[in-house]
Amino acid sequence: MKEIGTARIEAFSDGVFAIAATLLVLEIGVHSPTGARLGRELLRIWPSYLAYVTSFLTIGIIWINHHHNMRAIGHADRTFMFINLLLLLDVAFIPFPTKLVADYLKGPGNKTAVIAYAATLLVMAALYTIWWRYARTGRRLIDPDVKEAELRAIDRGFAPGVPLYLVVFVLAFVSPLAAVILTLLLAAFYLPSATLFAER
Amino acid sequence: MKEIGTARIEAFSDGVFAIAATLLVLEIGVHSPTGARLGRELLRIWPSYLAYVTSFLTIGIIWINHHHNMRAIGHADRTFMFINLLLLLDVAFIPFPTKLVADYLKGPGNKTAVIAYAATLLVMAALYTIWWRYARTGRRLIDPDVKEAELRAIDRGFAPGVPLYLVVFVLAFVSPLAAVILTLLLAAFYLPSATLFAER
Amino acid sequence: MKEIGTARIEAFSDGVFAIAATLLVLEIGVHSPTGARLGRELLRIWPSYLAYVTSFLTIGIIWINHHHNMRAIGHADRTFMFINLLLLLDVAFIPFPTKLVADYLKGPGNKTAVIAYAATLLVMAALYTIWWRYARTGRRLIDPDVKEAELRAIDRGFAPGVPLYLVVFVLAFVSPLAAVILTLLLAAFYLPSATLFAER
Amino acid sequence: MKEIGTARIEAFSDGVFAIAATLLVLEIGVHSPTGARLGRELLRIWPSYLAYVTSFLTIGIIWINHHHNMRAIGHADRTFMFINLLLLLDVAFIPFPTKLVADYLKGPGNKTAVIAYAATLLVMAALYTIWWRYARTGRRLIDPDVKEAELRAIDRGFAPGVPLYLVVFVLAFVSPLAAVILTLLLAAFYLPSATLFAER
Repeated sequence: MKEIGTARIEAFSDGVFAIAATLLVLEIGVHSPTGARLGRELLRIWPSYLAYVTSFLTIGIIWINHHHNMRAIGHADRTFMFINLLLLLDVAFIPFPTKLVADYLKGPGNKTAVIAYAATLLVMAALYTIWWRYARTGRRLIDPDVKEAELRAIDRGFAPGVPLYLVVFVLAFVSPLAAVILTLLLAAFYLPSATLFAER
Repeated sequence: MKEIGTARIEAFSDGVFAIAATLLVLEIGVHSPTGARLGRELLRIWPSYLAYVTSFLTIGIIWINHHHNMRAIGHADRTFMFINLLLLLDVAFIPFPTKLVADYLKGPGNKTAVIAYAATLLVMAALYTIWWRYARTGRRLIDPDVKEAELRAIDRGFAPGVPLYLVVFVLAFVSPLAAVILTLLLAAFYLPSATLFAER
Repeated sequence: MKEIGTARIEAFSDGVFAIAATLLVLEIGVHSPTGARLGRELLRIWPSYLAYVTSFLTIGIIWINHHHNMRAIGHADRTFMFINLLLLLDVAFIPFPTKLVADYLKGPGNKTAVIAYAATLLVMAALYTIWWRYARTGRRLIDPDVKEAELRAIDRGFAPGVPLYLVVFVLAFVSPLAAVILTLLLAAFYLPSATLFAER
Repeated sequence: MKEIGTARIEAFSDGVFAIAATLLVLEIGVHSPTGARLGRELLRIWPSYLAYVTSFLTIGIIWINHHHNMRAIGHADRTFMFINLLLLLDVAFIPFPTKLVADYLKGPGNKTAVIAYAATLLVMAALYTIWWRYARTGRRLIDPDVKEAELRAIDRGFAPGVPLYLVVFVLAFVSPLAAVILTLLLAAFYLPSATLFAER
C-alpha cells in the first residue's frame, strides 16, 4: 500500500487555511444604516477592518510557514496528522474571536474580546510548536535529504512564536488595542524576520 | 480516454471535508450582549465550543481515514463516486445538527437536538461502511498491489464504526450530554486505536 | 511558456463545486423555537431537507460529469475558460434559489420560488452544453488520443440535459413540488443512466 | 530541502479565489416577504444580481490572469508570497463592498457604496501590478525558458488595469450605477481583449 504522503495533508491544510481566511469577511457587517449615514457607519466600523487584516495576515503567515516547513517533512504518521488536525481546529476557530474584536474593541468588553482573541493565537502558536517538535525530534518525520543546519534554521524561526503571542496575551489585559496592533505588526514583520533568520 | 483516477475524487472530497469543518465556526455566536456581560456570555455558550470541537474532530478523523483508505483504492467507477457523494452529502450536513446541539444542549429540546446529531453521524458511519464494502467486495476497486492482510486491517478499522455510533444514538435518548461527550471521545481516541488495529 | 493546462481549471472548478455544495447547509435553519417545540419544527422544515438533498446531488452529478468530460479535453483556451467561468457563476448561484425553495415550497410563493430554481438549473444545463459544444466542435480542445466513439458517447450523455430541465421548468408552473421531486430524481438516476449510455 | 515551488501558492490562491467567488451568493437575500410578494421582491433586488455577476466575473478574470501569469513564474520567494497574500486579502474582502452595492445601489448611500466597491477593486489592480512588477523586474522570479516577447505581452495585459479601475473609481462619484456597469463590462470584455493583446 502506498505510504502516507504529505501531499494530501497539505491539500486539506491549504483548504482550511484558505477557507478560514476567506470566511473572515463574513464577520464584517453594517447594521443596515440609512443610506445617508452609510459613510459614517463605514468609518465607525474600523475595528472590523483592523481585525480582518490582522487575522487574514496571521493566517496567511502561518500558512506560508506551514508550507515552508512541510518541505522538510518527508512522511507523516497518524499522530502527526492528529496534531495537524488540532492546529487546524484552532485556525478554523479564529473567525469567532475576530468577530468579538470587531464588535467590542471600541467599548466595554474590549478586554474580554481581545483576551479571547490572544488566547486563540497563543494556543495556535503552542500547537504549531508541538507540531514541529514532534516531526523534528530524532528526525522522526524529516526527509533524509534535509541537513541539520536547515532544521536548526527552522528551529530559530519557531523560537519566538510562543513568547511573542504570550506578550500579546498579557498586553491584552493592559491595553486591548495595543495587543491587536502588536498582533498585526507580528504578522506584517514576521515574514522579513523569518527570511533573515530561518532561511539557509 | 484517461481512466477515472482517484486524484480528483480526493480533491473534491478534501474540499467538502475542509469546508464543512471550517463552516462549523459560523455556528458559534453570541447574542450581542453588552460589553460588561461579554465574559459571562462567552462562558455561557460552552455547548457551542463542545459541539464545535466534537464535530471538527469527527470530520477530521473521517477525513484521515478516508485519506488512509483511498490509498488502497486503485481506480473508481461511477457507482463508487455516487456513494462517495452521498457520504459527502451527509458530512456537509453536519454543521446543521451541530448548531442544534450548540443552541439546545443546556435546556429543553436537548434530546431532540442530540438525537438529530447522532442520527446524522450514524448515517455517516453506515454510508462510509457501504463505501468501503463496495470497493472491497471481490477487490472491485482495490489496487492490485495491496495485500489481503492490509485489507483485513482496514476491515478491522471499520468494524466498530456503526456499532459505536449506534450506542451514541441510543445514549442520546437517555443522556444527551453524555452522548455528545462520547462522540468527542470516539473522535479523540479513534486515532490511536486505529493505529493499533488497522495498521500493518 | 508552459501551455494552458487543464489541471488548474479542474482545481478551481472543483473548488467552486465543493464550496457551493457545502454552503447549501447554511440555508437550513430553524427559527429559534423553544426547546419543547424543536422536534415539531425539525419536521416542519422538511422542504429545507428536500431542497438541500436535491441541490447537493445536482451539483455533485454535474461535478462527476465535469470530471468525466474533462478527461476528453487535452488543452484549454481563454474562451473555454470564460464559458467555464459562466457555468461556475450559475452553479455558485444555486444556494440562493435553493433557499427560496426551502422557505416557500409549502405556501404561497411556491411557484415563484420553484420557477426561479428551475430557471437556474436550466441555464446551467444550457451553459454546460455550450461548454461541451465549444470544446468538441472540430475537436477544438479534444485530446488527440480520444476516439470519435468516445466523444459520441459523451454527446449522448449531454443530449437529454436541456430537454429534461426544460420539463422541470414547465412543470414548476403546474406543480412546484413535483418539479422539485423530478429534479431530485434526475440527479439520483442520471448517474446509472449516464453509466448505461455514456460509457465505453 | 526542496525549493519553494509555485504549486502550493497556486493551490492556496485558487482556494481563496474560489471561496471568495462562491461566498458572494450569501450576500443575496430577500427580506422574508410573504409568498404573494415574492415575485415582486425577486425583481426589486436586481442590484444584488448585478453586484453578484460583476464581482464573480471580476474575481474569475483575475483568477484566469493569475493562472496565465503564474505560468511565466519559475519560482517564488517570501516577499512574492507576501505580496500575493496582500492581493488575496483584497480579493477576499470583495464580498463586503459587493453587499454594500447590492443593498444601497438604488437609494441614498449609493455613492458611498460604489466608492467603497471601486476603491477595493482599484487597490486590487494596484497590488496585482506590484505582484507582476516584483516578479518581472530583472526577471527575478521568471522561468528561464520564458522569452522576453512573452513577458512584454503580459506587460501589455497589465498596462490598462490600474487606469481603467481609476476611471471606475472617479465615475463612482458621478454615476454609481454607470460605475458598476463599467466594472461588469471590463470583466466581460477583458478576456477577449487580453486574448488580442497578451497572447503570443
